[in-house]
Amino acid sequence: MREAYHSELGVLADQLAGMCAQVAEAMELATRALLDSDLAIAEQVISGDEKIDDARSACEEHAYSLLALQAPVATDLRTVLAAIHAAESLERMGDLALHVAKAARRRHPVPVLPDPIKGYFAEMGRVAVTLARKAEEVIRTQDIDAARALESDDDEMDDLHRHLFTVIMDKDWTHGVAAAVDVTLLGRFYERYADHAVSVAKRVVFVVTGRMPGSADEDDDL
Amino acid sequence: MREAYHSELGVLADQLAGMCAQVAEAMELATRALLDSDLAIAEQVISGDEKIDDARSACEEHAYSLLALQAPVATDLRTVLAAIHAAESLERMGDLALHVAKAARRRHPVPVLPDPIKGYFAEMGRVAVTLARKAEEVIRTQDIDAARALESDDDEMDDLHRHLFTVIMDKDWTHGVAAAVDVTLLGRFYERYADHAVSVAKRVVFVVTGRMPGSADEDDDL
Repeated sequence: MREAYHSELGVLADQLAGMCAQVAEAMELATRALLDSDLAIAEQVISGDEKIDDARSACEEHAYSLLALQAPVATDLRTVLAAIHAAESLERMGDLALHVAKAARRRHPVPVLPDPIKGYFAEMGRVAVTLARKAEEVIRTQDIDAARALESDDDEMDDLHRHLFTVIMDKDWTHGVAAAVDVTLLGRFYERYADHAVSVAKRVVFVVTGRMPGSADEDDDL
Repeated sequence: MREAYHSELGVLADQLAGMCAQVAEAMELATRALLDSDLAIAEQVISGDEKIDDARSACEEHAYSLLALQAPVATDLRTVLAAIHAAESLERMGDLALHVAKAARRRHPVPVLPDPIKGYFAEMGRVAVTLARKAEEVIRTQDIDAARALESDDDEMDDLHRHLFTVIMDKDWTHGVAAAVDVTLLGRFYERYADHAVSVAKRVVFVVTGRMPGSADEDDDL
């Protein structure tokens, strides 16, 4: 019985790791659609979001059935609940990639980003995708040190995000208010995506150590 | 045993309803701080956020102990899990009120909002607080019709939010890029707050009817 239970938990972890790979790919493609004003890629991300939502439902149903049939306690219970929270964060990451893709589609064929801003988003996209892939690795390996390393990638995202605001707010900004508004929202989407990835990794730390490292869902205020 | 269990569920519902009241008050005060550039009220919201985080932890611990000690199945299990999700949404609503208060503090004594924009935020604040208070009522009464009515308040928020963007993007906007960036982010905080309130109400509908009405966490793309 317990062995069957742990094998079921392993399946649940695989589902979550699979969701990480899905949202990493979604953000990679969404960033490409944004930078290259590529409508076909934007559409691919938009139509693909349903699969991420389905994966979240599947995770949640699996977790429910584990709770109902096995009535786990202590660490096993917390593991299942952490998986439910992680699936929620991952679905939200998919939504944020979707928002990026929709911004690219909304302005197409006009680029959303002024040229001098593209480099920031190329970097933010790279960091976001890295975070999602590292979260996948953390789920697969339950490596606590790898989980903690996500925080420094997230610091990089926060630095990029803060720097982005200094650029928009600078009096030499010549790209107008509408572009500033787009850049503001897009910057926030990337920053929230990174926060959720860190939150997923923190849940794994919690499962392994029994302690939650810091707050699970901080975000900076800008 | 079952009677004790249902009385425990009642306590959990009371905790969630109490969180609704807390986050309603937080957003009411944060909006006042924003509109009146009132630093003391902003500080009150900022220092009060910890209590909301504590209330969420208390809800979650209570839910965990119900799961561990009572091993509920079927509807009872889904009720406890819905409570865990609702507590997460409510904590997030508190965070969003906190962000509004921090924006007021960051720019103080300069007003964050240009005068012609204040009316929108007075309205968005009113709708946000109404949504949180209605979510409280829905939790206390489990009234499905009241829960569904939240969606029309949320439509009102989405309309305000969309209109806000047309104002910022208008070529007659004379308040500069920095104000536009602040208004963009603040608008998003109110809109997300409203989405989370709807999500809390939908969880109650789910508990009562066994069916989830629409997606729990949609947000519009702007």
